[in-house]
Amino acid sequence: MAKFIRVNMTDLTVDVSTVPSEYSKMGGRGLTSHFIFNEVNPECHPLGPNNKLIFAPGIVTGTAAPSSGRISVGAKSPLTGGIKESNSGTPFSQSLARLGYKAIVIEGQPENKKDLYLLKVTEDDAELIGANELEGKGAYETVTSLNEQYQDSDVCCIGPAGEKKMTMAGICFNDPEYRASRYSGRGGLGAVMGSKGLKAIVVEKGGCLIAPLDEDVFRAGQRKLVEGLRNHGVTQPGGTLNAFGTAALINVLNQAGGLPTRNFREGVFEGAEKISGEHMAEVIKERGGAGMTGHACHPGCVIQCSNVYPRPDGSDHVSCIEYESAWSLGANLGVDNLDQVAEMIRICNDVGIDTIEAGVALGVAMEAGLAEFGDGEAAIKLLKEIGKGSPLGHILGNGAGFTGRAFGVVRIPVVKNQAMPAYEPRAVKGIGITYITTPMGADHTAGYTIAPEILGVGGQLDPLDPKGKMEISRAFQAVTAFVDSCGYCLFITFATTDIPSATEGMVETVNGVLGTEYTPDDIVEEGLEILRLEKTFNERAGFTHKDDRPPEFMRYEKLPPHNHVYDVPDEELDEVWNF
Amino acid sequence: MAKFIRVNMTDLTVDVSTVPSEYSKMGGRGLTSHFIFNEVNPECHPLGPNNKLIFAPGIVTGTAAPSSGRISVGAKSPLTGGIKESNSGTPFSQSLARLGYKAIVIEGQPENKKDLYLLKVTEDDAELIGANELEGKGAYETVTSLNEQYQDSDVCCIGPAGEKKMTMAGICFNDPEYRASRYSGRGGLGAVMGSKGLKAIVVEKGGCLIAPLDEDVFRAGQRKLVEGLRNHGVTQPGGTLNAFGTAALINVLNQAGGLPTRNFREGVFEGAEKISGEHMAEVIKERGGAGMTGHACHPGCVIQCSNVYPRPDGSDHVSCIEYESAWSLGANLGVDNLDQVAEMIRICNDVGIDTIEAGVALGVAMEAGLAEFGDGEAAIKLLKEIGKGSPLGHILGNGAGFTGRAFGVVRIPVVKNQAMPAYEPRAVKGIGITYITTPMGADHTAGYTIAPEILGVGGQLDPLDPKGKMEISRAFQAVTAFVDSCGYCLFITFATTDIPSATEGMVETVNGVLGTEYTPDDIVEEGLEILRLEKTFNERAGFTHKDDRPPEFMRYEKLPPHNHVYDVPDEELDEVWNF
Repeated sequence: MAKFIRVNMTDLTVDVSTVPSEYSKMGGRGLTSHFIFNEVNPECHPLGPNNKLIFAPGIVTGTAAPSSGRISVGAKSPLTGGIKESNSGTPFSQSLARLGYKAIVIEGQPENKKDLYLLKVTEDDAELIGANELEGKGAYETVTSLNEQYQDSDVCCIGPAGEKKMTMAGICFNDPEYRASRYSGRGGLGAVMGSKGLKAIVVEKGGCLIAPLDEDVFRAGQRKLVEGLRNHGVTQPGGTLNAFGTAALINVLNQAGGLPTRNFREGVFEGAEKISGEHMAEVIKERGGAGMTGHACHPGCVIQCSNVYPRPDGSDHVSCIEYESAWSLGANLGVDNLDQVAEMIRICNDVGIDTIEAGVALGVAMEAGLAEFGDGEAAIKLLKEIGKGSPLGHILGNGAGFTGRAFGVVRIPVVKNQAMPAYEPRAVKGIGITYITTPMGADHTAGYTIAPEILGVGGQLDPLDPKGKMEISRAFQAVTAFVDSCGYCLFITFATTDIPSATEGMVETVNGVLGTEYTPDDIVEEGLEILRLEKTFNERAGFTHKDDRPPEFMRYEKLPPHNHVYDVPDEELDEVWNF
Repeated sequence: MAKFIRVNMTDLTVDVSTVPSEYSKMGGRGLTSHFIFNEVNPECHPLGPNNKLIFAPGIVTGTAAPSSGRISVGAKSPLTGGIKESNSGTPFSQSLARLGYKAIVIEGQPENKKDLYLLKVTEDDAELIGANELEGKGAYETVTSLNEQYQDSDVCCIGPAGEKKMTMAGICFNDPEYRASRYSGRGGLGAVMGSKGLKAIVVEKGGCLIAPLDEDVFRAGQRKLVEGLRNHGVTQPGGTLNAFGTAALINVLNQAGGLPTRNFREGVFEGAEKISGEHMAEVIKERGGAGMTGHACHPGCVIQCSNVYPRPDGSDHVSCIEYESAWSLGANLGVDNLDQVAEMIRICNDVGIDTIEAGVALGVAMEAGLAEFGDGEAAIKLLKEIGKGSPLGHILGNGAGFTGRAFGVVRIPVVKNQAMPAYEPRAVKGIGITYITTPMGADHTAGYTIAPEILGVGGQLDPLDPKGKMEISRAFQAVTAFVDSCGYCLFITFATTDIPSATEGMVETVNGVLGTEYTPDDIVEEGLEILRLEKTFNERAGFTHKDDRPPEFMRYEKLPPHNHVYDVPDEELDEVWNF
C-alpha cells in the first residue's frame, strides 16, 4: 500500500500511514492541489502555522516511464497569496516514489522559531532530527554534507533565503551527481519550508522500479512515448534541447522581438547571441573539463537538456544554464557576459532562490536606479545582498513586485505578484494569456503557447495576433495540469503535441500504473478539473478577475521593435475561465 | 461661482474653471470620493500617470461654522490599493475655500521624473513653478521657507518620504503659526503627490468668510452647534480634549485592557501613565516656554485639542502629541519616555510620514528582531533611516504590512495593508468592525465606536461583547462620511451624538451654505451613499469580502489581560454592507 508521511512541526511528531483513499489515484500537481484545496484555509497567513507544505512524486514517477522524475511541491504561496505547485526533475522524487511514499506533508510550526530540523525518510519510517548545525548554510554545502552523512540518500533542502522566509526562496533537490541544482523555484515555497523550521529532507535511495498494476498496458505506452520523444526534432537525442539546452531559445525569441530586455523596456537584446544556447555549447566544448551539454537531471530521461557550465579552467561552475536564467540574469539586465550569468545562477542556487524572480527583481532594482543596466558586476553584488540578509537583501529577496513597491517603481512585470518569465507578452500574445490567467501567477510552464506561437509545434500562429489565443492557452493549461500530475517533464509535450501515438503512450503509462482507462480525449477534462480547484482556492483567498490582468504599463507602453501594447481584451482574459 | 483647479503634470498646464455642476453641492470627502469614483480607473497603478489627487475643503469650510477647517485629500491609495480620503485641520483649507475654490485636482505625471514643482494659487489664478531647490527638504524647512517667500499664504507640501514615493508618506499642511504639523497622513497620499512631481502648494490667505446662501438658517445652526460643543464634557473649553488633548485616552484605554502594547501582543502597558495626556499636560505646565495645551489647529475651533510640547529648556519640540502618536511610538514600542516619543513625532512630521503607520511599522520591525521593545533610542535610529532613504528606510517607509513581509513576520496588525490604530480590536470589538470593513483600510476615524464602547458617549456598551456592534459601526461609518464631507472635525460628533440640537445645528449650517433642506434623519442615508461609492470603487479595484477580514493571528492568539480572540464572525463583518 502507498504511504503518506505527515510531519507535525508544532509538536515535532511524524506519522506514517496508508495514503487516504481519495488521493490513491493521484500524483504530482493533481495530488498537491487537491490536498491544499482540502486542507489549507485559503485565508491563512502563508508563513503562519496554518499553511501546509506537500511534496508529491508524479503518478508514473519511479517507474520506467521516460523523463518522469518530477516532484511537485504545493502550498499556499507567500509570493502570490494563492495556491502554488512548483515541480522539479530530480532523483529525490524517484527515490521517494520507489520507497512507496505518495506524499510528505509538513504541518504546523515550532514554538521556538530559531530551531531547525531535518526529516529523515527510510523505507519503513520517517523521523525528525535537530539540524541547527545547518543554520545559514548554502544549498551546496547542505547537499554535500548531507550526502556525506546520509550515504545513498537523496536530498532536499532550503538555503539561507528560505530560512529568512524570503518569498523568492525555492526548494532545492540534488541532481544525479549531488549538485544543489534542481529547484522547485517558483512561488516562495522555500519560505514556507523555512517558516516550519524544516531545513532539509533526506530520502534513502529507492532501489527498485515501481511495478505497474498492468505491466502490458504500461510497457506498450512506454514504448510509444519513448519512440515519440526519439523522433521529434526538439526532444530527440542530438535535437535542439539535447544539443543546446533550453537556452537555444535566446536567439529564437530575440529574432521574434519577444526577448524582454532591460526590465521589459524592449523586445530585442543586442547581446543575445553571447548568452545563447549555441554560444554556451561552444564555450562548453572549448573549455572542456567538467563542462557538458546533454546532461540528465534525473536517471531515465530521454531528452537530457541540462548542462554543466565550466569556468575558463574547466572546473564545474554551475549546473545548469537554462533559457530562463540566461535571460533573467542576462538580457533582462542588459548583461551579455555568460560567465557573469553563470556566477549569478550559482549564487541563486546556493542562496536558494528562483532565478526568474531574482533576475526580474534585479531588473526592477536597476529601473529604480540601484545599478546600471549592463553592469554584471553590480548585479552580482546586489544578488549577494540576498544571502547576507541585509535590508537590501530582504527587499530583493522578496521578489520583483516587492522591490518595485519598495522604490516606487511603476514598470513592474509581475502577475499576481510573481515575476514574468522570458517571453514578452506584448510580442507573444498567447503566452501573456497564460501568465495572466493561470492560478499560479505569471508562469510560462503553466500553458506553454510558445510551442505554436514561436516554435511551430502544434501548428504555426502569428505571435502578435491576439485572436484565438484564449482557447489555445486554456487547452495548454489543461494539458499541462495533467502532465504535471503524471510526473512527466513538460518537455515531453513537444512530442505529444505533434505525434498522436506519443500522447497515447503517455496516457497508457498512467493507465498501466493506476489501472484506469483514460483515453487521450480525457486529458483536457482531467486537467480542467485541477484548474477549477486551483481557481476556486484562489477565489476563496480573495482573488477576483481583477487579479487576471496584465501590469497596467503594458496596456499603454509600446514595446519595440513591434511597438505593440498588450491588446488581449479583458473580456477575452476572463473567457479563459468560462468552461 | 465656485472654481475648480485642474493641474496636468504631464504637459505642465493649469486650468481654472467653474466647478462641474455635479460637484456643486459637494465638499470634503463626498467630493473627493465622487471624483475619484468618476475619474480614476480603479485598476490603475496608484503611482502611475493615471491616478489623480484631489484636495477639497468641506462644505462649510471657510464660513463661521465652528471647528470646520478640514481639508479632504483623495486618490487611489498606494498603501491599500483602494480609494482613500484623508483629512486634516488647517488654515490652508479655509484659505482655499475663501478664495472660492471647491477643489484642486492633480493629474498626469511629468516625463522627467526628477523635476519638482510648486503650485501657486491666488484669488484669480493658479500656476506651476519649478521647485527643484526644495528637493529632499524636510517639511519644517519647506513650510518655513515657503512662508518667507510667499507671504500671507498657507502651505501644503510633502517631505522626503513623499518624494521617494514611500507608501506611508502623508501630505503636510501648516497650522496657524506655520508649523509643519497638520497631516492628511493616512494611506500614502504623499507618495501620490510625489509621483506627480508636486512638492508643494501655496495658497494666498483668503480674507473674507464665505457668505452662506441663507444667512439666517446658517446662523441659527451655527449657534446650536457652538452651544452643543460648549456644553459637552468632552468638547467644552476646559473639557477633556481641551485640557489634555487626545492623549487623555492613554489611561482610559489602558484601564480597558485595549491599549495595544509591543506590537499588539498585550492590551495593557505598564508605562502608560508616563505617556498619558495628563502627564503630558503636567510636563507642559512645568516646563513652560513654548509649550501649551488647548492649541487650535485652525482659527475658529471651539474644541482646541492640539498642543505644543516643549523641550526641557522650554523651546518648541513638536506639535502635537496626539493619542495615536503617543501610542504608536510609545506603548506600541514599549517606550514610556515622552521626550523620545516627541522626538519621533518631530521626525515623522519632518520626513513627512503618518505617525500611526510609522509606529506600527517600527513595532513590526521590533517583532522581527531589528531592535528591542522599549529601546526608544533604537526606535529613533530606525525612524531616521526613512528620511535617509536607505534600503531599511525604504522597507520601513512602506509601512507595517510591507515591513512584516520583508522580514517574514506573521503578527502584522493591518487591514487592507493599512496599520491598525490605537484600539485593540480583541478588547474593543466594535472598533474592530470599523477597522475591518471601512473601505479606507484600518482606520478608527472611519466609524469611532469607541464613543459608546469606552467613553459612554451615545450610550455605554460592553467593549468585549461583539453583539450589536455591526449596526453601531455601520451607523457611525455613515455619519462620519457625512461629517467628513461638511469639513467639520470628527470631534464635534461627541456633542452631536449626545445633544440633538447640536446635530440640528450641524445640518442647518450645511443647509444655510448650500440652500438644501437636509434634516438630521437624512445624515445616515447621505453617508451611506458615499460609502457605497467607495466600496464599489474598491470592488472594481479587485477587493472582495476577503479583504474585510482581521489579520489571521487575531483569530487564534488571545490578547492579555482579557484573553479574547477577535470573535466577531465573518458573516457579521459582511453584514455591514448589507444595506
